[in-house]
Amino acid sequence: MAPLVPLPQDLIPFLDRYLPRKDNDDFFVTLTYAQSLDSRISKGKGIQTIISHPETKTMTHYIRSHHDAILVGINTVLADDPGLNCRYCDHDIRPIIIDPSFKLRTIFQRSKLHENCVNGVGLAPLVVIDRHSLVEGHGIDTLVLDVDPKTGKFSWLDIFKALREKGIRSVMVEGGATVINSLLRRGEDGLFVVNSLIVTVAPIYLGSGGVEVSPREGLAVEDVSWWRGKRDVVCCGRLTSEAGRLAADEQGGEVSC
Amino acid sequence: MAPLVPLPQDLIPFLDRYLPRKDNDDFFVTLTYAQSLDSRISKGKGIQTIISHPETKTMTHYIRSHHDAILVGINTVLADDPGLNCRYCDHDIRPIIIDPSFKLRTIFQRSKLHENCVNGVGLAPLVVIDRHSLVEGHGIDTLVLDVDPKTGKFSWLDIFKALREKGIRSVMVEGGATVINSLLRRGEDGLFVVNSLIVTVAPIYLGSGGVEVSPREGLAVEDVSWWRGKRDVVCCGRLTSEAGRLAADEQGGEVSC
Ligand SMILES: NC(=O)c1ccc[n+]([C@@H]2O[C@H](COP(=O)([O-])OP(=O)(O)OC[C@H]3O[C@@H](n4cnc5c(N)ncnc54)[C@H](OP(=O)(O)O)[C@@H]3O)[C@@H](O)[C@H]2O)c1
Ligand SMILES: NC(=O)c1ccc[n+]([C@@H]2O[C@H](COP(=O)([O-])OP(=O)(O)OC[C@H]3O[C@@H](n4cnc5c(N)ncnc54)[C@H](OP(=O)(O)O)[C@@H]3O)[C@@H](O)[C@H]2O)c1
Repeated sequence: MAPLVPLPQDLIPFLDRYLPRKDNDDFFVTLTYAQSLDSRISKGKGIQTIISHPETKTMTHYIRSHHDAILVGINTVLADDPGLNCRYCDHDIRPIIIDPSFKLRTIFQRSKLHENCVNGVGLAPLVVIDRHSLVEGHGIDTLVLDVDPKTGKFSWLDIFKALREKGIRSVMVEGGATVINSLLRRGEDGLFVVNSLIVTVAPIYLGSGGVEVSPREGLAVEDVSWWRGKRDVVCCGRLTSEAGRLAADEQGGEVSC
Repeated sequence: MAPLVPLPQDLIPFLDRYLPRKDNDDFFVTLTYAQSLDSRISKGKGIQTIISHPETKTMTHYIRSHHDAILVGINTVLADDPGLNCRYCDHDIRPIIIDPSFKLRTIFQRSKLHENCVNGVGLAPLVVIDRHSLVEGHGIDTLVLDVDPKTGKFSWLDIFKALREKGIRSVMVEGGATVINSLLRRGEDGLFVVNSLIVTVAPIYLGSGGVEVSPREGLAVEDVSWWRGKRDVVCCGRLTSEAGRLAADEQGGEVSC
């Protein structure tokens, strides 16, 4: 496991107001990912791609340390075999995998998730599966929910409510594109479930064959701040929950940077 | 015509090394555009979309003043009816429209290009047309080239060579997506024709229905600097002409920011 580069110290005050507060009991969702200028998060389906400067990896571990859990979609596990642990944590952080048809079962023993768990450097993952995928004898923690029969998807509100009931109060969502794009949309109540957005933008193009982040509809990010790293920038902001506001209406708004 | 907001003074040293030099006679191409986080440059085909903070408009006029010509594709003229003049110029700057089938002819009299020209606040455009579109009696300056019969496109080298022969030594390319994506590719000689890249990134998402910038293949931007404005960032850089270098190989490179 390659050592992390040191944490740029100005990231600490920069990130502060976008992280969950220890003294606040509200459920908190941070959405974070690294993209190229052309909004790709990998070179192609299932191809693990290093996009950002090593500073971002350090930042990711730092942000993880402020959360109870890390959440990704199953395709990210299949493509990247991520460790999803936290090298800055003074507490354990729970990997959560959204995996309705329980694909993780077949590869778990060979995964870094399993290895970290065996070596005592990561908690066992919690896998969110559909009721129809329930099987016995795999030794993996599952959270059983029902997908919407029309869309084949879980509702994010159901997922976060169930996590809350398990004592999880803050979740850092790290991808992939399907998960990110669906969280950049308003729920049926017209509100976003994401509290903070933390996007690293690297000065590269991955090209039109890459896996892209772009939600179905436009939206404006509010309360924006940018951090400049050695090569990349990081954009922090919040999603506006005021229904009906559109990207282009935001022109000229004074936003601190 | 709305007045421009003042030019942020720190943009002047920031942009300096990405602009053509007066003492250098080499042909210089600057590629510039404004995008959302999800790499869209408009909400939809033909829909004019304000993306960036008004500071960027001022910056655009400032950058124009360092060039002999501004170049756009015909669809941008049809969608946005841009003025393409320069409010900072002590010299005239030539609008160049890439328009193989000479669509401009039918709408020119109603365009802002025409209005600026009549009012003495802009030069007449030069329209790059295909030999088959040549007609008489329209009073528009044309540059006649041959499109590649296979692709229906002009080669950028042909375009820039012809402009050079007309005494133009620096071109600021402003869009739209077809033009930008094709300039983010290497020519047949394996080299990029673009010298400088200046991209404004606004913290909004325009959504998957928008007009997107993403070249066919990945590429790394070199010699990168970022500027932070009131709401947006600007990324300046150069395209590497070292054939075969790929985005992901650029990891960890020390680049000034
Ligand atoms: N640059 C970065 O920051 C970053 C971070 C993470 C991942 N990535 C990249 O992203 C790519 C993977 O993205 P992806 O879009 O293919 O996959 P993904 O978002 O990781 O996983 C998508 C899958 O998760 C399940 N899922 C997600 N949301 C669900 C919901 N609400 N309800 C039910 N199931 C849900 C579905 O599984 P089923 O198909 O079984 O229904 C869905 O197909 C990889 O190439 C990876 O390298 C990049
Ligand atoms: N945000 C920004 O910075 C920005 C800037 C400019 C434009 N835009 C937006 O971009 C959109 C327009 O983009 P677009 O991709 O549709 O159009 P475009 O790039 O403006 O124009 C494309 C057309 O120009 C001609 N053309 C371009 N390159 C050529 C070549 N090498 N050889 C021959 N012909 C060539 C072709 O005309 P034919 O079809 O006749 O062959 C082509 O269809 C608009 O919505 C506009 O608002 C945004």
